[in-house]
Amino acid sequence: MFQKITKKSEDSNKWYEEVVEKAKLAEHSPVKGCMTIRPYGYALWENIQAILDREIKKMGVKNAYFPLFIPKSFIEKEKEHIEGFAPECVIATEGGGKKLEEPLVLRPTSETVIYATFPKWIRSYRDLPLKINQWANIIRWEKRPRLFLRTIEFLWQEGHTVHATEKEAEKMAREALSLYHDFARNYLAIETIQGQKSESEKFAGALRSYAIEGLMSDGKALQMGTSHNLGQEFAKVFGIKYLDKNNKEQLAWQTSWGVSTRLVGAIILAHGDDKGLILPPKIAPYQAVIVPIWRSSDEKKMLEEKIERLVGGLGKEIRIKVEWQDNLTPGFKFNKWELKGAPLRIEIGPKDLEKNQVVFIRRDDEKKESIKWDQISNKLKTTLDDIQKNLLKKNQDFLQNNTHTVDSYDQFKKILEEKSGFIKAGWCESEACEEKIKSETKATIRVIPFKQPKKLGKCICCGKPAKHEVIFAKAY
Amino acid sequence: MFQKITKKSEDSNKWYEEVVEKAKLAEHSPVKGCMTIRPYGYALWENIQAILDREIKKMGVKNAYFPLFIPKSFIEKEKEHIEGFAPECVIATEGGGKKLEEPLVLRPTSETVIYATFPKWIRSYRDLPLKINQWANIIRWEKRPRLFLRTIEFLWQEGHTVHATEKEAEKMAREALSLYHDFARNYLAIETIQGQKSESEKFAGALRSYAIEGLMSDGKALQMGTSHNLGQEFAKVFGIKYLDKNNKEQLAWQTSWGVSTRLVGAIILAHGDDKGLILPPKIAPYQAVIVPIWRSSDEKKMLEEKIERLVGGLGKEIRIKVEWQDNLTPGFKFNKWELKGAPLRIEIGPKDLEKNQVVFIRRDDEKKESIKWDQISNKLKTTLDDIQKNLLKKNQDFLQNNTHTVDSYDQFKKILEEKSGFIKAGWCESEACEEKIKSETKATIRVIPFKQPKKLGKCICCGKPAKHEVIFAKAY
Repeated sequence: MFQKITKKSEDSNKWYEEVVEKAKLAEHSPVKGCMTIRPYGYALWENIQAILDREIKKMGVKNAYFPLFIPKSFIEKEKEHIEGFAPECVIATEGGGKKLEEPLVLRPTSETVIYATFPKWIRSYRDLPLKINQWANIIRWEKRPRLFLRTIEFLWQEGHTVHATEKEAEKMAREALSLYHDFARNYLAIETIQGQKSESEKFAGALRSYAIEGLMSDGKALQMGTSHNLGQEFAKVFGIKYLDKNNKEQLAWQTSWGVSTRLVGAIILAHGDDKGLILPPKIAPYQAVIVPIWRSSDEKKMLEEKIERLVGGLGKEIRIKVEWQDNLTPGFKFNKWELKGAPLRIEIGPKDLEKNQVVFIRRDDEKKESIKWDQISNKLKTTLDDIQKNLLKKNQDFLQNNTHTVDSYDQFKKILEEKSGFIKAGWCESEACEEKIKSETKATIRVIPFKQPKKLGKCICCGKPAKHEVIFAKAY
Repeated sequence: MFQKITKKSEDSNKWYEEVVEKAKLAEHSPVKGCMTIRPYGYALWENIQAILDREIKKMGVKNAYFPLFIPKSFIEKEKEHIEGFAPECVIATEGGGKKLEEPLVLRPTSETVIYATFPKWIRSYRDLPLKINQWANIIRWEKRPRLFLRTIEFLWQEGHTVHATEKEAEKMAREALSLYHDFARNYLAIETIQGQKSESEKFAGALRSYAIEGLMSDGKALQMGTSHNLGQEFAKVFGIKYLDKNNKEQLAWQTSWGVSTRLVGAIILAHGDDKGLILPPKIAPYQAVIVPIWRSSDEKKMLEEKIERLVGGLGKEIRIKVEWQDNLTPGFKFNKWELKGAPLRIEIGPKDLEKNQVVFIRRDDEKKESIKWDQISNKLKTTLDDIQKNLLKKNQDFLQNNTHTVDSYDQFKKILEEKSGFIKAGWCESEACEEKIKSETKATIRVIPFKQPKKLGKCICCGKPAKHEVIFAKAY
């Protein structure tokens, strides 16, 4: 029998941990706080990477690679930056059997090590914009690791750009955020809210931070990507200057932006159900899994021939797996791929062969349908498209149904106690109110959405006129 | 004027350093001993990665990701392994503002951290072979860094497999080496010698190590890839066992194998000349660079129209760049792309437009040819193919002409003093002779080639009957 997992509705945290381990996405590594990303989880990440890399390059960005090590003196150059990151730093102090002359911080983010290099690459306005991206491992000390969501080491992409004007930098920061938003919607089937971070939540050293926030099915928010207009702070500190058309020296403007393996966590949390994962077809390692059913070796042989021809005919367009193992029952295979979230299961038994058909079983809505052999190829594509759309629709509906607009603090607190979700409310922009709400309810300002209502109400906390309508939520 | 570079024939080391920096492949990072891989160099690595990743997956290997950190106690488990790697370890001792409970070694290679995990993934023979690969950054302390060839941090792929039998493990180790050999020949246009490493040169902890060795154009050898039959040593230490068909517990057999960003160094050293890089078309970031030449803005406009249509028509098959900058002279652009090693330069001036032609200039043999407009697409493909073949042919000829079979130690020493290269000679298999030769001539046994002559002569050092014919060389 296949091992059961905890119901998501009963204990979402336990469910998450079990799904990640039993679907073989990842596991806690023997190294405390780190994770091992297993092939099935890594294949998801590779699919995410391939799409994002292509889209990032379309923005005129080029990949490069900078050192893991950051001399402690670099990271201390920008005051806010080091204050923000100091508690998370892991530091190497020995090398080649000796104490290092200067301790080396393992990159918790690469602004400082990259920006120490940029001045050498930029002379005049002709060298701008400079748009660089790197795929790298990142190290941040975590006391309470959760696989994919928060681990000491994780994988990400970090874009770093330099511009001649503030306007261009702002445009770039928004463009990157928009890319993340569209990627989440079109590939991960997750609808997110785009907006600005409050001062207290912004990136250490940035002028303005932007984020996309997704609502997970347990009602908690997940920050899925960030983009920062860094202004000129780092440029000042690292001397990133350029000669303008009049041959006058100018200080440059910068942005940085990134998404990480946390996106895998988002997929799990946004779509999964009591039976396990549900993967959007566009990024699923296997979009369809064929479970052949036989009673004799003759039947198996017949199935082998037919299925081999079928899979060969589908080509590389569709990622497909056939479960041939002799030692597992069909029932075990069904459960396994439900748990592992394959978008579509295709059953083929001896009776189906007689009738010249197969049976499609969708993971998202569990609908069964018999498909004639010569219709498989067409039907596969349309069904996968339909699953992708349906998952997004479900997620959008969930977001809408769990976004509560409130105008009293009592209502605010009641929602957080009873059902969670996103809460839309007015905010006066004072840190005091933000802090009070956080300490009383554990909810934080996730974003100040770009889309603002025409009329603003009052601050949910102090009652003064609101400066923004913001999204509050408990967050991962 | 374009900056000149040191002649390769005059000072190969200086030439290398200058080419790497001026062609913008990489540079020494502000972090001592590390390198920054710039977009042009990284694009080379991305092309290498894409091909290798595809070929590795064809062997049934799956990608995964394991932690950067290795607890010191893990790496100390296998005695030979830690002896080999201890001098190269960089160690993190602080995290989150506190001293770490156990110092963490930054992976100098990942055998120990991966093999501590494998026992959880393997129960029976049905789980074998287990074939895993990871793309990762690697940390080895280096006192004398050289860009791409030897830096404290570098990028690589490391394959790790587990098998039921010694035979299968041996087959796998050979298959991986063979993949590297074919990749070097077919894509990098470098002919390498495949063979076994001597005991003193093998991987710390391996049963047998294999390598491919290339001969660089300065007569020095470069180890370009290694593959190890690890036997059962690590399996013993980490408890990697499986139940066989009779339900009996057995110790597993393992392999590991890898290539790194060092391959970029190999390309530079193998093909470059006094003018700079020469990149094989199959992995060049830009296979062809178009240099348009105009005297008036009207001429520029005409060129823009025509070239845009041309490049659009070539599609994604061919990686092409057009040099439009107003502030650089055509001569500067020619020199720039000679230095950067673009396989083919295409010049189009007003006179060419009149004649409905362009001029192809090959980087490898400097041949010029006028090509009619409607022939460009076909001719591009055949010319790039021809350049790829020619580079390999040149490299093969060079290898042949610089591989010297000797039967006296005097001759041996004379060659090393005068012209270097590979020296084929008999070896009695004693470490004493190997050591003596190394200390007297700086030449080491690069490989014991798989291809052995029918009759073996005498040991070049002691004169006793040779057990193998081996390749000696000075190496990077």
